[in-house]
Amino acid sequence: MKNTDSARRHTSRQLARELLLVGPNDEDLKLRYLDVLIKDGLPPNGARKDVLIIGAGIAGLVAGKLLKDAGHHVTILEANGSRVGGRIKTFHADEDAAEGDGPFHDPKQYAEAGAMRLPSFHPLTLALIDSLGLQRRLFFNVDIDPDTGNQNAPVPPVVYESFETGKVWKYGADSPEFREPAKRNNSWIRTNRIQNRRKEYTEDPTGINEGFHLTGEEARITAATMISQALDPVRDYYSDVDGDQRVNKPFAEWLDGWARVIHDFDGFSMGRFLREYAGFSDEAIEAIGTIENMTSRLHLAFFHSFLGRSDINPNVTYWEIAGGTRMLPEALAEQLRDEIQMGRRMIRLEYWDARRDGADARDVGPVGPQVAVHTVPEDQPNAEPTVWKGDLAIVTIPFSALRFVQVAPPFSYKKRRAIIETHYDQATKVLLEFSRRWWEFTEADWKVELDAIAPGLYDYYQRTGEEDAEAAVAAAHNGHRPPRGVPKLLLGAHASVDEHRISEGQREAYRHTPLLRASVRPATDCFGGGSTTDNPNRFMYYPSHPVPDGDGGGVVLASYSWSDDAARWDSMEDDERYVFALRNLQSVHGRRIEVFYTGYGQTQSWLRDPYAFGEAAVYTPHQMTSFHLDAGKPEGPVHFAGEHISLKHAWVEGAVETAVRAALAVHAATAPAAERRLRPEVQLRQENQQEALHR
Amino acid sequence: MKNTDSARRHTSRQLARELLLVGPNDEDLKLRYLDVLIKDGLPPNGARKDVLIIGAGIAGLVAGKLLKDAGHHVTILEANGSRVGGRIKTFHADEDAAEGDGPFHDPKQYAEAGAMRLPSFHPLTLALIDSLGLQRRLFFNVDIDPDTGNQNAPVPPVVYESFETGKVWKYGADSPEFREPAKRNNSWIRTNRIQNRRKEYTEDPTGINEGFHLTGEEARITAATMISQALDPVRDYYSDVDGDQRVNKPFAEWLDGWARVIHDFDGFSMGRFLREYAGFSDEAIEAIGTIENMTSRLHLAFFHSFLGRSDINPNVTYWEIAGGTRMLPEALAEQLRDEIQMGRRMIRLEYWDARRDGADARDVGPVGPQVAVHTVPEDQPNAEPTVWKGDLAIVTIPFSALRFVQVAPPFSYKKRRAIIETHYDQATKVLLEFSRRWWEFTEADWKVELDAIAPGLYDYYQRTGEEDAEAAVAAAHNGHRPPRGVPKLLLGAHASVDEHRISEGQREAYRHTPLLRASVRPATDCFGGGSTTDNPNRFMYYPSHPVPDGDGGGVVLASYSWSDDAARWDSMEDDERYVFALRNLQSVHGRRIEVFYTGYGQTQSWLRDPYAFGEAAVYTPHQMTSFHLDAGKPEGPVHFAGEHISLKHAWVEGAVETAVRAALAVHAATAPAAERRLRPEVQLRQENQQEALHR
Repeated sequence: MKNTDSARRHTSRQLARELLLVGPNDEDLKLRYLDVLIKDGLPPNGARKDVLIIGAGIAGLVAGKLLKDAGHHVTILEANGSRVGGRIKTFHADEDAAEGDGPFHDPKQYAEAGAMRLPSFHPLTLALIDSLGLQRRLFFNVDIDPDTGNQNAPVPPVVYESFETGKVWKYGADSPEFREPAKRNNSWIRTNRIQNRRKEYTEDPTGINEGFHLTGEEARITAATMISQALDPVRDYYSDVDGDQRVNKPFAEWLDGWARVIHDFDGFSMGRFLREYAGFSDEAIEAIGTIENMTSRLHLAFFHSFLGRSDINPNVTYWEIAGGTRMLPEALAEQLRDEIQMGRRMIRLEYWDARRDGADARDVGPVGPQVAVHTVPEDQPNAEPTVWKGDLAIVTIPFSALRFVQVAPPFSYKKRRAIIETHYDQATKVLLEFSRRWWEFTEADWKVELDAIAPGLYDYYQRTGEEDAEAAVAAAHNGHRPPRGVPKLLLGAHASVDEHRISEGQREAYRHTPLLRASVRPATDCFGGGSTTDNPNRFMYYPSHPVPDGDGGGVVLASYSWSDDAARWDSMEDDERYVFALRNLQSVHGRRIEVFYTGYGQTQSWLRDPYAFGEAAVYTPHQMTSFHLDAGKPEGPVHFAGEHISLKHAWVEGAVETAVRAALAVHAATAPAAERRLRPEVQLRQENQQEALHR
Repeated sequence: MKNTDSARRHTSRQLARELLLVGPNDEDLKLRYLDVLIKDGLPPNGARKDVLIIGAGIAGLVAGKLLKDAGHHVTILEANGSRVGGRIKTFHADEDAAEGDGPFHDPKQYAEAGAMRLPSFHPLTLALIDSLGLQRRLFFNVDIDPDTGNQNAPVPPVVYESFETGKVWKYGADSPEFREPAKRNNSWIRTNRIQNRRKEYTEDPTGINEGFHLTGEEARITAATMISQALDPVRDYYSDVDGDQRVNKPFAEWLDGWARVIHDFDGFSMGRFLREYAGFSDEAIEAIGTIENMTSRLHLAFFHSFLGRSDINPNVTYWEIAGGTRMLPEALAEQLRDEIQMGRRMIRLEYWDARRDGADARDVGPVGPQVAVHTVPEDQPNAEPTVWKGDLAIVTIPFSALRFVQVAPPFSYKKRRAIIETHYDQATKVLLEFSRRWWEFTEADWKVELDAIAPGLYDYYQRTGEEDAEAAVAAAHNGHRPPRGVPKLLLGAHASVDEHRISEGQREAYRHTPLLRASVRPATDCFGGGSTTDNPNRFMYYPSHPVPDGDGGGVVLASYSWSDDAARWDSMEDDERYVFALRNLQSVHGRRIEVFYTGYGQTQSWLRDPYAFGEAAVYTPHQMTSFHLDAGKPEGPVHFAGEHISLKHAWVEGAVETAVRAALAVHAATAPAAERRLRPEVQLRQENQQEALHR
């Protein structure tokens, strides 16, 4: 089939419906999904089928819960032998762990290896959290003023305003007392050795911008403004400016606008868009890429970063779950205790497809189950493979992992292409534990804490302030001597650190990679939020809340990087990363943070994870148009769910949305034949399939 | 600086000169490099300086040898404690290893983890090999007829025909008796479950092409023809068709043509080029990508794959080194025994730059050394860092690794961008050892060898030939029983295999991941060359020559994959890879190859390699224009070399070329000031720098 423009326009229209969850009769599918997931469950149809679900990530768990509640016999096969949740993973200690036995020294501390922030425009996820009785609280993507707001009041309800006129979906009671704290923007941008607080950068971007060799008009606006101005013509396709915000156009124009955006821009990488469409200089793209986290993904699809701009945005409210994001999958798994089989890795998937047309069709199928899944146990390598049989299956594992599963008969051509080609991105985190929340300190706090170690230590750390490289090098050679009474190695020198817990290897590595310069920095004074640097750490986040009953410290996300930025870290062994990450953290926050380092770090490379096979699907240019519609299509009795099936790549919401959708489709397929035509979900699927045949 | 088109044209012209090695006076720099490297050495200038070289890969070793021979005091600091060569790495046993103690069961076997083929148009590398007395022999990128040619005659000389009219550089004696064997193209293409020999595909591409859903005219031409036709308009910029080959245009047009190619296409990814410029359907791009190894790099620079099309090409002669590519770095290292310091990882680089302009300049510099390199020992974590001082340095490590080195003062802005942004690709190999060279077998050979295990075994393997999925699944369930006397597990069943060497883990994994279908395939009957599949193995290569005094077997490169294809393998632990690779190998070559598997595999993920930090620099669109000219510029006394500094990314030749260039520049910088202006190398550099200032 040739890529004629009319075929591409047609595909773009379908993709816009998938993106916006607009059903075949222009109905809001998200409204339906919300009702099914949170309020009504699946419509009773009396069927009780055997459903195999592959993967106990959030998609598998949500689909499993819905289908179980509807009376089906569900089996969830999870490769990982030790935990559910997939790319929702919280580093945490067992409940009865002693000090130092968990991932961090303080057994109360925990930190997110994966999903960590849940935006307010993801109602399925937020309402699911509330419905499970989990404690939702604010995640501060931007640091806040702790003396403002009223965040301890009951959380506000989950509200979803539909595009169907007048329809508003709401879950939970109103909470008029709840107020978010004010944003302070105290956190740092440090690039090209120039360091500003975000609010300083917003007020006067020239310092940071000139570090990128920007000149003229480009030097006088922030990177966020640059990117915003560049994206405005694209946003004009489907929305209008109304004062200082954007309002969607009327339904038909809105839908058509998105279809045209997809048609016009899916072939673009973000780099191409910024260079060729927006006309930015290389230097402006470097500034935008560095500050707005696009550099490492400039060669990937424009569309991914474009959607992300609406997603990760200083004006959005984000939420987190008290106790860690893991509470969500664990709460679901608690309800699926008898259904989940841990440590079962699928190696083969066999199915009989009664609906297959053409040369592969069979007039009669085998009696009985239509799907067989072969698994090998993760932790008993000598056991025989197990064969699980079912009427239907939902495969939720990443396509990058599915690539290594034998499938018989082969999936349709375009599904195979999607499995082979879908680009999975790298994302890597390095987390470091500190015994005090130094990022919240003022200079006065620093003086108290440092002089408690040894009088004069505060001044010692302040002594060599200049940034002059040669002088700093000379100083390092001559050796500034610390005041009397100070331990020889200041790493973990504060009394709150059990410094014997810092391994000899880390001490030595630390000693051998001294800071290039003295790194005297003002107190960070941030509650939540994160800083940005062009050093390899790239993005750093401070915890939004202290842990209850903890020892007074916290875990900093010292480095969060994507794509090529992450690849650099992925080349290093885990243990090597901590000292590098600490040194890079010091270059932004000052050398003195070393006294609170507990010696405990954790790191997660999603590409190297043997269950995840990558962070998330992030399309390269044109992949969405080429095969996204095929990625989610059922193959006979085999259905698909997961973030990669959605157009909310990398988000929990995408996994939940496709899980509800797959559960609806599987459930509808079990209903008596006469009923099936009535279900919009099935209609949408059938329409998609017919359209595919017409292409 | 704005990206005005005139600036881009200027940059493109400079890049064309870098690509083609055209000097400032239109002279052929490669001729000069060949003379310097092979015949004359560096011109004597009486200077004796201390030169620090970072990295004992091929670039560091070549630069080190040239500078040592010219009388300088050279120190080469290599992070790896156990070998030189960098991304030239041969898996091999120690000389006195017993059976099974090396990387393969047969201690004579070896295989390439990195560089494996050296094209005839890379004269620096080939002449260097000959000059070191190493045995050069043919590498068969395409399988050959072993009864033809006369490859045991002395190898022909290395010949380089310059663009300077009439100049031909030659090294070695003529060898009129030498004749390459004829190509047979017996190797396989297996995609979408359709399997053809290459010669069958060339004769009638419809079968394979229809597997990709190609229709009409697109179905009737080979993928190689499609890509060739698409690239012809680009090649027309700088060359003309003359019969069945292309001839470069006259010098000025040729140089200008390349400049215009760079100007017009450096912003393209290969995917964009094929889609938007060549107008191919998605399906045609899938076929081209799969068969011609472009799928995983479609989002990377057009230019990289475009250059590669001239490089890896069935019509080019390739060479290899008897004993493994490692012989090259080892022969060089033998001459640098006193200069190489193993196990020294650079963590900090300090330099004093007398030539720095602007705010950072100092009127007077320190007396003595201008460069200091701090290293930590790899294998003695408790030792103190060592500081090495020199007058000049050549940094040859990948930019991905240099990203984690502290540098004082910081390099220039664009060099920092190059270090941060240069995309490094993934490349992963899985190598499996077999006790017999089954890929050379005819059916008659198979019958003899299999029936020697148990009479009737040959027929047993032939029994279920059909590709029908359901029937094959049923057969697997019913179980075809092997004839009497056959071992229960046929893995390594041939008498030539010491089957106790196959680990219990591998046996079990093998048992638990049975082939999806019976996989009956005709004898491969290939001497050298390689096959292609759309299964995760992607590209497979058979050894070109048996090892001398071996046990009769060989090591197959069972999987060679790049970029996203490689990322899938990188998510798995090494041990997991062998059984997957063997099963995928069987799906192309038949189940029966299992009887010769020795249980020995090796694998190399270049992205996960803690010294390499990636396979090689592979630019994303526009990176070449944006910063390649800056990547190689010296920073005061610090010079740069390595494949990433060249425009022959990933090739040994690029490393050698930039090493000679850096050695020339360093050597020239040590000469009395009055002499410097006469050296073209320095002139080119100065011109580049001046042009940079003008931009």
